[in-house]
Amino acid sequence: MSSPTRSPTLRSPTRSSTLPPKPESEQLKIAKAAKAAFQKSQLIPASERVKALQEIRKGLDAAKDEILAANKRDVAAAEVDVRAGKMAEGLLKRLDMTKGDKWDSMLQGVTDVAELPDPIGVVSYAKELDDDLDLYRVSCPIGVLLVIFEARPEVVVNIATLAIKSGNAAILKGGKESNETAQLLSKVIQTALSRTTIPSDYIQAIQTRSEVLALLQLDEYIDLVIPRGSNLLVKSIQNATKIPVMGHADGICHVYLDETADIEKAVRVVVDSKIDYPAACNSVETLIVNEKVVNTVWPAVAKALLEKNVELFCDSPTLFALSKLTLTSNNLSNHIHPSSPDSYGKEYLSLSLSVVTVDSLLTAMRHINAHSSHHTDCIVTEDEQAGATFCKGVDSAGTFINASTRFADGYRYGFGTEVGISTGRIHARGPVGLDGLETYKYMLRSKAEKGHIVSEFGAAEGKKKFKHATIDTKSVPFL
Amino acid sequence: MSSPTRSPTLRSPTRSSTLPPKPESEQLKIAKAAKAAFQKSQLIPASERVKALQEIRKGLDAAKDEILAANKRDVAAAEVDVRAGKMAEGLLKRLDMTKGDKWDSMLQGVTDVAELPDPIGVVSYAKELDDDLDLYRVSCPIGVLLVIFEARPEVVVNIATLAIKSGNAAILKGGKESNETAQLLSKVIQTALSRTTIPSDYIQAIQTRSEVLALLQLDEYIDLVIPRGSNLLVKSIQNATKIPVMGHADGICHVYLDETADIEKAVRVVVDSKIDYPAACNSVETLIVNEKVVNTVWPAVAKALLEKNVELFCDSPTLFALSKLTLTSNNLSNHIHPSSPDSYGKEYLSLSLSVVTVDSLLTAMRHINAHSSHHTDCIVTEDEQAGATFCKGVDSAGTFINASTRFADGYRYGFGTEVGISTGRIHARGPVGLDGLETYKYMLRSKAEKGHIVSEFGAAEGKKKFKHATIDTKSVPFL
Repeated sequence: MSSPTRSPTLRSPTRSSTLPPKPESEQLKIAKAAKAAFQKSQLIPASERVKALQEIRKGLDAAKDEILAANKRDVAAAEVDVRAGKMAEGLLKRLDMTKGDKWDSMLQGVTDVAELPDPIGVVSYAKELDDDLDLYRVSCPIGVLLVIFEARPEVVVNIATLAIKSGNAAILKGGKESNETAQLLSKVIQTALSRTTIPSDYIQAIQTRSEVLALLQLDEYIDLVIPRGSNLLVKSIQNATKIPVMGHADGICHVYLDETADIEKAVRVVVDSKIDYPAACNSVETLIVNEKVVNTVWPAVAKALLEKNVELFCDSPTLFALSKLTLTSNNLSNHIHPSSPDSYGKEYLSLSLSVVTVDSLLTAMRHINAHSSHHTDCIVTEDEQAGATFCKGVDSAGTFINASTRFADGYRYGFGTEVGISTGRIHARGPVGLDGLETYKYMLRSKAEKGHIVSEFGAAEGKKKFKHATIDTKSVPFL
Repeated sequence: MSSPTRSPTLRSPTRSSTLPPKPESEQLKIAKAAKAAFQKSQLIPASERVKALQEIRKGLDAAKDEILAANKRDVAAAEVDVRAGKMAEGLLKRLDMTKGDKWDSMLQGVTDVAELPDPIGVVSYAKELDDDLDLYRVSCPIGVLLVIFEARPEVVVNIATLAIKSGNAAILKGGKESNETAQLLSKVIQTALSRTTIPSDYIQAIQTRSEVLALLQLDEYIDLVIPRGSNLLVKSIQNATKIPVMGHADGICHVYLDETADIEKAVRVVVDSKIDYPAACNSVETLIVNEKVVNTVWPAVAKALLEKNVELFCDSPTLFALSKLTLTSNNLSNHIHPSSPDSYGKEYLSLSLSVVTVDSLLTAMRHINAHSSHHTDCIVTEDEQAGATFCKGVDSAGTFINASTRFADGYRYGFGTEVGISTGRIHARGPVGLDGLETYKYMLRSKAEKGHIVSEFGAAEGKKKFKHATIDTKSVPFL
């Protein structure tokens, strides 16, 4: 591995040294205020957090015209940049809040999250250590989140909603292209918080990359960094901080067609996994074909993909199998190419797909474990045992049987909304909803007349022994 | 915060540049072998992991004389270093495996862990997303652990035991002072693994710091670093790697004497928290006294501490309250000192204690949240409401009511043994047993005739809606 490097997108323009800048007092103030707001909020009941979300929804409703007008100005400025070649055209669609049902689903998301059960105070382990000495492992928020995202301004609302419901303070930094919209959304959130007992510093917004770089040094106050955006953004942040980072670096998903794969299932699952939204991280990038179905299932899948305009990068066996294919349009044969070793482990994010043949399920699993980004991988099979082996042996956040990789999503999993999808293994994995924003603490209570001390316990005669009897509860009785 | 620096203890002696060294092919081989062993092991049933632990216990029994002879040689070499002033005397006690019941409790630990329930395959979330489409969140091991520890050679066995039971591969690096003992213990573990179907590269041992530094760069293969040892060791490792680090940096624990504190409980809990094992991270370092009990509870506690030879560093009110104290020995008054601002947040790890007065529970909580290392803090109180407020408001891994801080320990919590105590908030917090070495993955299975695809779902008319019906299960039915 090369030494950690900082991405130029995160380097403060006023410094040429590779040392991170000394935190400005302004960022230190922001981080300290966030931590203080978090600590104060621990004694505030869950009902206030729900009230805050209801106030945010009301505030957004009332300010709709103003916000969409600001969004139009952001879009207009971005169009200039796109014409000047300074910005990718794809960003425009993500930036525009008037498109489709974006506004309504943003509002619905706030209500959905408000109505989810309180994720705080849930007991996951409880033991009676001794008579009158009870231990509880209880869910509680992590602390202060620093969330960095690109383009889509409604993410301000999504993240603030999840942070408030999960009991975490948050510092938010959006892309500069959505600046006017994001500022207004933040103002609505602050105003809503001021109508509750939650401190108004609970959700703060910052604007510049140099502020981010300064905050990334403040590991005493910031507990978790969540970058939402490109691979480059995520990697540059991981390289710039000691604070834990939760994010995904790549979405290289596989579908494996097992020797028992059903043709119709294979066609449906592969086509949906590729074309439903090719730019998404949960789209398939490599198809693995068992050699026993290379002349049966594979040609049918290939035909369906070609008809949807997908470019195929094939190894020799899958290429050869297509030589007999009858295509409705001659143009489609231009979409068939030989693969190179580089094709495998490539994240196209477009209508392209690498294809490779294997001799067995075990080889397929080895290929996936070596090339996958450990996001989501799928097997198409009629063999229950093969499905179970795949689910156990593939080392990814999602292992699917006969279902499109596109199901890997917090909303689809039932989390209401998601803060992102984690390909890390630590803390949270896969789509991250409220649960992924909680940690836990241990509460121990002695009800004994003289309290409880350790020196009374031990292996020697006359010493007490631990009971470790399970307490069956989901909540702490004395809270 | 200053820029990340590397501790000299971890810097490779052959390089003067601050760039991390390029991984040696030998370390890359070790890391790759560990990852391959981990991936292969995913299909091995739990019974093989239990068998491996039984074989380890048998192997240790058979090699007892040989191992203790090697340990004597390590101790003899260390004694030379201690006499030459090159090693702290405290290390000798930790190094010596013949002391007390160390050997027997090491063996018992292996059996205890073997008998714990399998932590793999436990379902923590299960939903029916649609007819015939079931989602399971299932516990599974993290991957490859790099565990770095000092002095105590039996830690090799503790960690290998936890790693094998939890399904993780591990690379272990002990202190050089325990080299001969650790080598033999590793050999016994390897031999035991060779009697099972678990790959022998599952547990590997390395010897030198430069090997550690090279491995810390291999974030592609190593998933979690667990340093067990001094604050300096933990910080230097955090600064040298992008791999997530699970450890605790400090143990600055508090006991707060509330205005309703019972005198006898206060004396028992504070004395036990301080003197049971002062060098442990879960010992108390600062006592906080509510001003309403400064002339009642505090003098009794102080007297008990002084009689146990504890040095007290007091603020003005607690100092003044002691002026009327009658002490059995004049010498003890030498143990009372005024505190300085530096006294608070200090980890003595010895028979010293800082004392501060506060006007309320809220001030006590603010003091703790500002000065604690978020390890374990305790309130002594007769007021149920005050106990609940303390448990909610104190932002630490352990919040205790009328129980000694020394209870913060994996064995005492009922985990069998522990891999360490985490003061981080991410992934695991407090004592870390088997649970803390698991992550999870999502398994999704379609039983529908045509499989499941995303494009059939949506808000529009005619599209399917998600059911998100809870499935009540603790295990995956098809595994």
